[in-house]
This record gives sequence, structure tokens and C-alpha cells, in this order.
Amino acid sequence: MNGAEALVRTLVQSGVELCLTNPGTSEMHFVAALDRVPGMRPVLALFEGVVAGAADGYARMAGKPAATLLHLGPGLGNAIANLHNARKARSPVVNLVGDHALSHAPYDAPLSSDVAAIAAPVSGWVRRSERRADLASDGAAAVAAAHGPPGQIATLIVPADVAWSDGPGPEAALAHRPPSAPEPEAVRACAAALREGPAALLLSGSALRREGLARANAAAAATGAKLFCDTFNARLERGAGVPPITPLPYFPEPALEALSQLRHLVLVGTQSPVAFFAYPERPSELAPPGCAIHVLVEPGADADAGLEALCDELGVVPAPPSTAEETPPSPPTGRLGPRSIGASLGALLPEGAIVSDESITAAAAVFPQTRCAPPHDWLFLTGGAIGQGMPLATGAALACPERKVVCLEGDGSGMYTLQSLWTQARESLDVTSIVFANRSYGILAVELARLGVAEPGPRARSVLSIERPVLDWVALARGMGVPARRASTAEEFHAVLRASLAEPGPHLIEAVY
Amino acid sequence: MNGAEALVRTLVQSGVELCLTNPGTSEMHFVAALDRVPGMRPVLALFEGVVAGAADGYARMAGKPAATLLHLGPGLGNAIANLHNARKARSPVVNLVGDHALSHAPYDAPLSSDVAAIAAPVSGWVRRSERRADLASDGAAAVAAAHGPPGQIATLIVPADVAWSDGPGPEAALAHRPPSAPEPEAVRACAAALREGPAALLLSGSALRREGLARANAAAAATGAKLFCDTFNARLERGAGVPPITPLPYFPEPALEALSQLRHLVLVGTQSPVAFFAYPERPSELAPPGCAIHVLVEPGADADAGLEALCDELGVVPAPPSTAEETPPSPPTGRLGPRSIGASLGALLPEGAIVSDESITAAAAVFPQTRCAPPHDWLFLTGGAIGQGMPLATGAALACPERKVVCLEGDGSGMYTLQSLWTQARESLDVTSIVFANRSYGILAVELARLGVAEPGPRARSVLSIERPVLDWVALARGMGVPARRASTAEEFHAVLRASLAEPGPHLIEAVY
Repeated sequence: MNGAEALVRTLVQSGVELCLTNPGTSEMHFVAALDRVPGMRPVLALFEGVVAGAADGYARMAGKPAATLLHLGPGLGNAIANLHNARKARSPVVNLVGDHALSHAPYDAPLSSDVAAIAAPVSGWVRRSERRADLASDGAAAVAAAHGPPGQIATLIVPADVAWSDGPGPEAALAHRPPSAPEPEAVRACAAALREGPAALLLSGSALRREGLARANAAAAATGAKLFCDTFNARLERGAGVPPITPLPYFPEPALEALSQLRHLVLVGTQSPVAFFAYPERPSELAPPGCAIHVLVEPGADADAGLEALCDELGVVPAPPSTAEETPPSPPTGRLGPRSIGASLGALLPEGAIVSDESITAAAAVFPQTRCAPPHDWLFLTGGAIGQGMPLATGAALACPERKVVCLEGDGSGMYTLQSLWTQARESLDVTSIVFANRSYGILAVELARLGVAEPGPRARSVLSIERPVLDWVALARGMGVPARRASTAEEFHAVLRASLAEPGPHLIEAVY
Repeated sequence: MNGAEALVRTLVQSGVELCLTNPGTSEMHFVAALDRVPGMRPVLALFEGVVAGAADGYARMAGKPAATLLHLGPGLGNAIANLHNARKARSPVVNLVGDHALSHAPYDAPLSSDVAAIAAPVSGWVRRSERRADLASDGAAAVAAAHGPPGQIATLIVPADVAWSDGPGPEAALAHRPPSAPEPEAVRACAAALREGPAALLLSGSALRREGLARANAAAAATGAKLFCDTFNARLERGAGVPPITPLPYFPEPALEALSQLRHLVLVGTQSPVAFFAYPERPSELAPPGCAIHVLVEPGADADAGLEALCDELGVVPAPPSTAEETPPSPPTGRLGPRSIGASLGALLPEGAIVSDESITAAAAVFPQTRCAPPHDWLFLTGGAIGQGMPLATGAALACPERKVVCLEGDGSGMYTLQSLWTQARESLDVTSIVFANRSYGILAVELARLGVAEPGPRARSVLSIERPVLDWVALARGMGVPARRASTAEEFHAVLRASLAEPGPHLIEAVY
């Protein structure tokens, strides 16, 4: 058995069922092995940024890793941005990268590059499989490393001659390390801090599911603490009947304000909050000076158990889910914009929807209005590397074929990885993409204004605006096999969204405002 | 003066006139400075792979660096593949990457990553400007480092607070290091090797202009040596009246055959030839065992002076340019394919054209047929990282607005960086893109067959074919503001190519076969 087949068999035995790829010559033995081994579904993407973002979306929804299959340093380079987002989401990813044969490595051939060096900044685990005899066990180790917890990018570099050489067969799966349990001492300290106040709980990671949210709400209500989640989270369960939580604001001024009165901040599966960017004369740390930081559980630890123990310590019992009727927004009318788009989504989002949100400047108007929609999951831009939205939606749809996926996408950020639409069409994925066509890098205009440049000159304007020429997203989507429609009033958008959600398969709506 | 303005002024004084960018928040001070400093033209691309490839194309044609402006680790990551190609082309690039403020670096904010580590594998020079007082001199050093020779990627990382802080003004340009002169001893040894034979000259880099080719042809003719250039070259001057040269074949078998009888190989501005990929039972080195390797000049050295000295040593004088009428191909008829497309190009390519060639499997049929077209420059895929063709064409057109640029692009590789078309439309660049729509990763089908997999199974086929769904390149181009037409017979293609070349501005032709 050649190395490629032993590796594929090992991955399948370790529970990896999906291989997202854009392969090259060095990966052809792996590709050929896919036809000899049942259980691994290959999905082609036309660009590696789609591969990486889809692996992230799959991991967030499936709770386990997909494999990527990338072509040497440049293929990995194209995946870096969305691997960065996956790293910040703590998503498990088995990141397979082909490389030149070991025998070929000394010769500086055109495609030679230092693959391990390119992988290191985004990977929690990197191994180059240099002996055929170790390849299968390296594969099993990569899957275990990806699982963590917390999840991480496990990069396995596979030289072509290690893949093509004959040798031992597959290895069995390695056991996963369980998430660590909460420390009783930490639970007592956090409970005391909440009782003393003024305090807040800050949640992220696996705490952001229905049960964790119920417990966190109960603990906050019993102690008068505030309750926040991170600004950007891998996955947040929300909607009617799901206990609510407020993300920390994006810009430092309102975030500082939100935390300004605190003497205690309790972290549940996240880090101490920091500003997204630094600004002159603004602090990086968002908790006020003197605020004590308490860790209930670290990222990747058992957040549910931690919150349960906290409730026990506080002697509180989570309230049963609310059965009160919550009123979603009415269908909007008139001018189209983030506010009316949010109202349509709030009214039409189906139960079990998965929302991949890369709407950037539009998010502030959209997010609150979907609060009362039927229960759904919200996936955020975790690492700030744009081009995540459509790939993430692609991977989420591969993980959850029975659920409707909605992608909220800026027109600027969408252009980074528009190739996602082709994979959505090929795999008949149930994704409705909404492109917020404001024809600018809106967030950068805001940032420039924050520098005091209220009236940018022509050169600055030229790199913030994308209106000349106008991007025709309907043509772009159709060019990749995705049916698309344009809407320019609130009524039009509402009707088009309703129709798109009613029909299975991929759709794109260009919302022009 | 803030650091950003001091840096922009320094770059302009150092001869950098073009800034290719997709900026973010950390780069806003630089963007604002562009409006205060004359002499730096900003050109926006919708994806950093376009930025990097355009910087490469500009450098190959302008002979000097453009600046990039990229946003932290993920923006740099998106540029890695085309920076890899630029590195292999030895193109000078001033690669500016914004980073978090130094004060913000300790906090692991969402966009934090190790920018220097991501940059190192593609850069010949990396510096992080950590003191405001050094920023301008770091900028001048980056330009000098980019120039080399040989040209290289000089990455300057600019923390946001270094850019926004006040401090000293710009620095003067640093002198460029001249290319090193040929060593008389090396010239004598190469001349003796050519006389002794059987020998060949292998050229790349700056030797591939009219004068160098004339001298190399004279030296080869006088000694009976064979004459080759690398398979992939940054820039090759060719066409009617330009002394010809044959690239080494891509696959190792014909390349080994071409060099099989040699006892001496003389290198002019290149490395000893190696196979692009390794294959089982095939050597990596292409020169036969026992063949002596002689270096006339290293990459980046003065190849013209080396070839002149070689001719002097051999006592030969280059022949005057041929004035014989060479017959370009006739307009083709019938079935459309690489052969007929090549014939149309050979018949229609205008004098001074610049051809960016990423036609992959089609190149073997196209390249020879353009041999007798009027003099033109041919730019190759130097590093094997696909997605180079359209960005490179974009940069070449920015460098040479008075010349016609033709981009030969595979449909698979074109999808990597199709965002280039938008920049071509915005800047009204005179680029005609020809998409070879064979609807497959044709080269991978060849590679799979070389493994002995003549009939790939359904899973392997699914990752080699891109025909389901069909990509509509006419829609994709129009979606980005580029007029486009489809051709599916040789006559149609010929007419459409003639019309596209006759009309200034960007065009795309989807050649379906």
C-alpha cells in the first residue's frame, strides 16, 4: 500500500469524512487513493481560500475536523487568511499540504518553498512526515492534535515520495483528550466576584449554546452582573426562546463604556477583552484599570460544566426556556439598507438557519433585528481576515445539509473569495448569499474619519470606493452557476429573500443601496 | 510629519511611483498621506494576490519596484503565492505590510499574527520598523534591497503607531549596487568548455534580451554548442528579427534527452537545471552525470557584459539582426483549440506586445507559433504558483501603457485571481485576456496519467474537472466591467481577437474548446 492510501485510510478511521481541496501534481497519489478508499468525500474549490474557510465552517458546525489538501507553499499561502480565522475560532482542521519529494528538496525547483515556515504562524501543530513508516501514525496524530481541545490547525506536510512509496497500512484513531473540568477553587472565586460586584461575565466558545446561555443568564440575574459575549464568536446560538447575550461593541469607546464600572470580570472560555485595533490615546485593554480578571474556564475547557458548577455555587437554577411570544420585525417598506435587510431577515429566517456573517458595517443594524427569529446559529468573522463569509457558509452547508444557510456578505469582502459560489453550485448547497452592495470599503471610510480625515482626497477615496466600475454580482454569480437576483427597494428585497429561502440550492441576492 | 508621510516621501524620492494596494485600518495613515505627497499613484486591487502579481509584472517591465501595501498577516498571506512567483522571477518588490501598533502587539487581538514569519519564506529582506526615527531610512533601505541585484522581495513591516507618530522627515534614496562584472577566469573557462564540447549554453534573466540573445547565438554557432533558456523565465524578448532560443522542455524525459549528450553546460544568469517535479525513478538534475557545470555569470550579475566577454574570448562577432522575411501563420479555420489560437496570435500579435503566459497545457501549441510575430516580450509563470497570469498582465500594463498586453490564461488558473479584471477596467488598461476554456485542470489529468492512472475513478475525476457547473467567463468579466466575447470556432476566435486588439482598453475572450 502506498503512503497516500495509508494516510487516507487512517484519516477515515479517525473520523475525517470530508476533504476540501485544490490539489496539484504532488497530491495526485492522494487523489488517486480517494477512489480506492470509501468514506472520504472530496469537494473541489477553485481557490484555497475557499478550502480553508469551508474547513472552518464545517468544523464550527460538525464539531470535528475536515481535511484540507493543498499544493505546496503557494497553495498553503492562499489558505493562510482563512486558516487565520479558523485559528482564532479554535476550529479543528487537519491541514494537509503536499510538498516536493524529499529527494527533490535540495534542488530549489520553481515550486520549492519552506512549507513548514509558512504553516507555523497559523498552526497549533506542524509535522513534516519524513519517513514512509510514520505517515499513517502522523495522520492519526494530526487528527488528534486538531481536536485539541481547544481545536486548532494541525498541519501535516506530505512529501510526494512519502506518499508514493509502499509501506505499512493505516493506523487506528487516537483517543481524544477530553476537555478539562472546571477547578472548584476557580468556581468559588468567580462566584465570590460576581456576588461582590460590580461584575460581568464574558463568554465565548462552547459556552454560547442554549444551555450555557441559560446558566450564564441565571448567574448574572442572581448577582446583578452584566453579561457579554466576545464581539466575534465562532458560533452563537440565538433566536426566540434562546437566552440572550450581548456581544461587546466593536469600537473601543463603547466597549470601554460597557465595562467601565466593573470591579470584576469573569471569563468563560475566552481571553481578557482587547480592542480590535489600537488607536492613538486609547487603551488596548478594555476592562478598566483595577478590574480583577477571573477565569472560570479556559478556552477549550468544559464551559458547560463550569457554568453548571458556578450556578450550583451561587445556588441558582436556570429558568426554563421562555415561552413568551416574541415579535419578529414586520416586513419593511421603502428604502433598502442594512436596517430593512435586517427586518426582512428577522421576519423570514427559518428555524435552524445558520448565518455566516461578514456584513461588516451592516452588522450593527442587522444583528439585533434577528434576535426574535426562530432559533438559529450565528457564525462571526473571528480573525478579522476578510473573505471568510462565503467559504464559511459553504463549509457549514456541507456539515448540515438539512439546514438553511444564509450568508451576509459585504461586496468588498465578498470579492476576496467569490469562487465559493462555484462550489456551492457544484455541490447543490442550500446557501442564500446576500451581498450588501454599498460599493465601498465602508469600514475604512469610518476608520479614516476616526483619524480626523473627514474629507479624504482623491487618492484616498480611490482605494476606499469600489463603485467604479460597478460590480455586477448577479452576473458574477450566474457566471459560476448560482441563480441570482438584484433588489433595490425593501419590498423587492423581502420578496426575493422569501423566494430564495423557499427554493433549495444556492441563491444570491445583490442588495443595492 | 507623521511616519506614514515620511515613508511615502522617501519611497517617491527613491523612485517608487506606484503603490498597489488593498489596505485596511492599520494602513489608513499611509493612505491619507498619499493625498499629501505628489508622485505616488495608488492602484486598488480587490484581492492581494492581484496586488502581488501586478507588482511582479510591473517590475519585470519597468525594471524597478512598485510598492505594495498590505494589511497585516492575512493580507500578506493572500499575496504569498504571487510573491513566490515574483521571488522566482527575481523581481524587485517593495512589500509594505501594516501591522498592529507596537503598544497593541502583546494583546493577541483578533488580527494579530506573526507578520515577519509569514513574510520570511518569500522575502530576500525583511525588516520591522520598530522606531519612528528609523522609518524613513528603513524605507530607503527597502528600496535598495529590492533592487538587489538580483531583484528580490524586500518586506518592510510598519506598525500602526510608527506610522501615526510624529518625527523626522524623509530620507534620500540610497545608491543602487551595480550588477557584478564577469570574472575573466570564468569567461575563459566557459569559452574553453564551449570549444571542447559537446556543450550547451543555458540562459535566463537579463540575458534574454535582443543583445544577449544575439551574442549567445553567435557563441553557440561558433562552437557548435546547443542554446537553451530556462523553461520559465521572467521575460524573454522574441519575435521576427530577434535571435531565437529554445526553452528547456517542462517534463523531465524530453529535458533529459535535450541535454543527454553534454559534457559541458554553461550557465548564464541561472541555476543548474532541475525537474519541475520529482517522479519515481527519475533524476531531479537534468544535466547528465559527469557533465561539467560552468557559471559565466550568476543571477543578477551583468549577463550582457558576460556574453560580450565570452564572444570576445571566442573571437566571434554577433551577426546583424536578420532582415529575412519570416512568415507568420495564416489565419486558422475549423476547430478551435490551442493550435488554432496560437496561429491567430502568431498572425495578429502587434509589435511591442507583452504576453503574460499562464496557458499551462496550451502553451506547447501556442508558444512556437508566435515565433515570427513582430518583436514582443513573453512573461512566464516563474514559480509555478497558479493565478499569476492576469495579475502579471495588469502590472505589465501599468508599467507600459503604450504597449498592448495579451494574457493567455487557463480557466482553472484564471479563477484564482479573476479580481484582476476589475482593476484592468478601473484603470482602463490595454489588456486582452484569452481564457483557454478546456474546463479542466488539464495538467493534472496529464500528471495522473503519468502515475499510471489512465482511467481515474469518479472521486479523482471530480477534482480534476471544472465543467460542472460550466464557468461563464463572459458573465464573470462583464460582472467586473470588462467587455467580453465567447468564441468556439477558429474563425470566430480570429475575428474576435482582431477586434479586441484593435480597440483600446481591457477585453476578455473566452475560447471554448
